[in-house]
Amino acid sequence: MINVAVFGYGTVGSGVVEVIEKNKNMINKKAGAELNVKYVLDLRDFPGDPIQEKVVHDVNVILDDPEVQIICETMGGVNPAYDFTKQALLKGKSVCTSNKELVANHGPELLRLARENQCNYLFEASVGGGIPIIRPLNYSLTAEKIDGITGILNGTTNYILTKMDKEGADFADVLKEAQEKGYAEKNPEADVEGYDACRKIAILSSLMCLKNVKYEDIYTEGITKITAADFLYAKELDMSIKLLAMSKDMGDEYFAMVAPFMISREHPLYSVNDVFNAVFVHGNMLGDSMYYGRGAGKLPTASAVVSDVVDCARHIGKTVMCFWEDEDVKLASMDNVSHKFFVRVDKSKADEAKVKEVFGNVQVVQVPSLTNEVGFVTEVMTEKAFKEKAEELGAVISRIRIEQ
Amino acid sequence: MINVAVFGYGTVGSGVVEVIEKNKNMINKKAGAELNVKYVLDLRDFPGDPIQEKVVHDVNVILDDPEVQIICETMGGVNPAYDFTKQALLKGKSVCTSNKELVANHGPELLRLARENQCNYLFEASVGGGIPIIRPLNYSLTAEKIDGITGILNGTTNYILTKMDKEGADFADVLKEAQEKGYAEKNPEADVEGYDACRKIAILSSLMCLKNVKYEDIYTEGITKITAADFLYAKELDMSIKLLAMSKDMGDEYFAMVAPFMISREHPLYSVNDVFNAVFVHGNMLGDSMYYGRGAGKLPTASAVVSDVVDCARHIGKTVMCFWEDEDVKLASMDNVSHKFFVRVDKSKADEAKVKEVFGNVQVVQVPSLTNEVGFVTEVMTEKAFKEKAEELGAVISRIRIEQ
Repeated sequence: MINVAVFGYGTVGSGVVEVIEKNKNMINKKAGAELNVKYVLDLRDFPGDPIQEKVVHDVNVILDDPEVQIICETMGGVNPAYDFTKQALLKGKSVCTSNKELVANHGPELLRLARENQCNYLFEASVGGGIPIIRPLNYSLTAEKIDGITGILNGTTNYILTKMDKEGADFADVLKEAQEKGYAEKNPEADVEGYDACRKIAILSSLMCLKNVKYEDIYTEGITKITAADFLYAKELDMSIKLLAMSKDMGDEYFAMVAPFMISREHPLYSVNDVFNAVFVHGNMLGDSMYYGRGAGKLPTASAVVSDVVDCARHIGKTVMCFWEDEDVKLASMDNVSHKFFVRVDKSKADEAKVKEVFGNVQVVQVPSLTNEVGFVTEVMTEKAFKEKAEELGAVISRIRIEQ
Repeated sequence: MINVAVFGYGTVGSGVVEVIEKNKNMINKKAGAELNVKYVLDLRDFPGDPIQEKVVHDVNVILDDPEVQIICETMGGVNPAYDFTKQALLKGKSVCTSNKELVANHGPELLRLARENQCNYLFEASVGGGIPIIRPLNYSLTAEKIDGITGILNGTTNYILTKMDKEGADFADVLKEAQEKGYAEKNPEADVEGYDACRKIAILSSLMCLKNVKYEDIYTEGITKITAADFLYAKELDMSIKLLAMSKDMGDEYFAMVAPFMISREHPLYSVNDVFNAVFVHGNMLGDSMYYGRGAGKLPTASAVVSDVVDCARHIGKTVMCFWEDEDVKLASMDNVSHKFFVRVDKSKADEAKVKEVFGNVQVVQVPSLTNEVGFVTEVMTEKAFKEKAEELGAVISRIRIEQ
């Protein structure tokens, strides 16, 4: 029997207990031992809940119990999860987490502590909810030099953008509806400003580089400025708009960013709708591969945490492979990053001839109902060149990058 | 240093050597040791090839060399690969294979031999080429009860169907072009009749059931009867036609089949085009997840073989987890399997009224250019009920199942 403790009995933590109970035959078979939830750490009590007898309020009860070998940290936030995780690892207890915040902030240090204490720090649930992505990167694509990762990593924004696309609605209205349905937080900033996706691409980028990509260094733009009009243009172009988090190995340097992008109907990420997430990975031998599924939600996320528990159970006393060094990666300046851009222009300030004079060869897009403006798609150009030309033109209403 | 031997220096075997050489820094780091290709087994010589000195014609040279710890079996076919693999495993040498034929025929026995001899029999490359799918099923989805797998598992047929969809061409013409381009074999039977996809879904089904699904028991229908007219109807329905291999846990029994299906634009498999493959997996906690990438080709397939080599290198002397028992699974009769059906009817033999009289509530589809016939979509019904009603109607030109 292997004793497990759950830190935090919120949505994911209670999901972990539920998954372990519901699929126990399959899980115990794969773990090679019976998993027993011995403790649940929470400030609250849960009278009437089957785990009420297991609830403790003092973390030291768990840390001092040599019978506990694996901890599921589903508290979220950096503190006190950071301190609790360190203490657990120092005592040789493996920790499985859904806490992207903590992993993005202290991943390399916690992985080192795990190695030094012959245990594991696993974080499959921290990116893409239930989608297997950390383990495929670490265990499956081992013969690849991974040189690009592009993901739809936030379910809330993807839900909002999907609704805007299908219903022609405006951002504020859809956000309000999403909040009423519980798909978006009351304070939606972390999602809609791209901060959540930023943490997640920092983690994936680090696993790509095998070094530390600091999330603070990643250029991040949210979806709050995307409008119903933008989707009218997207439709004319047979495209949709998605919040993409991406990371690329450009040979001598890496770049990473989070921003809304237009993508064409042919792109596999085009069909990733609603709260689904997907991660597109490019390797130098394999080419493109994609991993798709539910990026959030109680049971999918808990399922990923429990898959980490099974991994830990099969590797008691042994640290499994994860290359993510302390050394920080210096990211390339955004100025040098290139894409096509979709641009909306105020017709009263610049006509098509002027656009072509400044931007050269462009594809003009006219939405019949938007008579005061015109849209166009540029050739591939750097962010720096785009900024300069946009300033020269002086009539730009907005721009959205295009992913190809 | 870990010594590796490659059995068969064809497309995949030479790819294995190339991948190990090209990504050696990354691979050796992940393997935790330097990989050295010591032998290549082939009937031919390869003068001028960098591996010419390593070629041997007698398998016993390799089997008797205690320095060889890992073998890549990239010969294909059951014999003599079966015998060579057994002998290698009996000597405690791990075997990594791309040989779906052998895995589908003798998987459980070879896995048992590996366990008994503290080595491994790994087969990531046998399904979906370079797509990580075997390892995600075995190592990642360990907290799930997997209850459904649906895949586009054959690149040749997907290439043909994509071309037919996009160009309105007929099967025979596209096949001829595919053969000229090398995307289809001169004898295309294994691909176009669905036999290749059948082997692959047998392997995936076995990993879902943890028992043995015999490929001979799987209902298999190819794409040779799909016509340009079928795609005209598919377009009217906003659908495409894909060769799907599927397997479902229906609670008290399993079923598996390979056949062309219509799928709607909303389905994530709709966008899987050309030679790409994808596997859709449903778990009871996670819901849907999908794994997408290149299902064939020299380097993608070789990359999967080498990822198995890395796994073996990290687990010398230890058999990694794979549950696939010898016990055969009895599959459900196709009679009891249910879908919607798309049906084309000869108008001279039955009109819409007659169709509705026999099939009840149907969705009628008329392609303007096909004046002598009419199409319709049934409600969900069993294969048995469909057969009976189709016979009663007596005017059916053809039918294609619909996946929802």
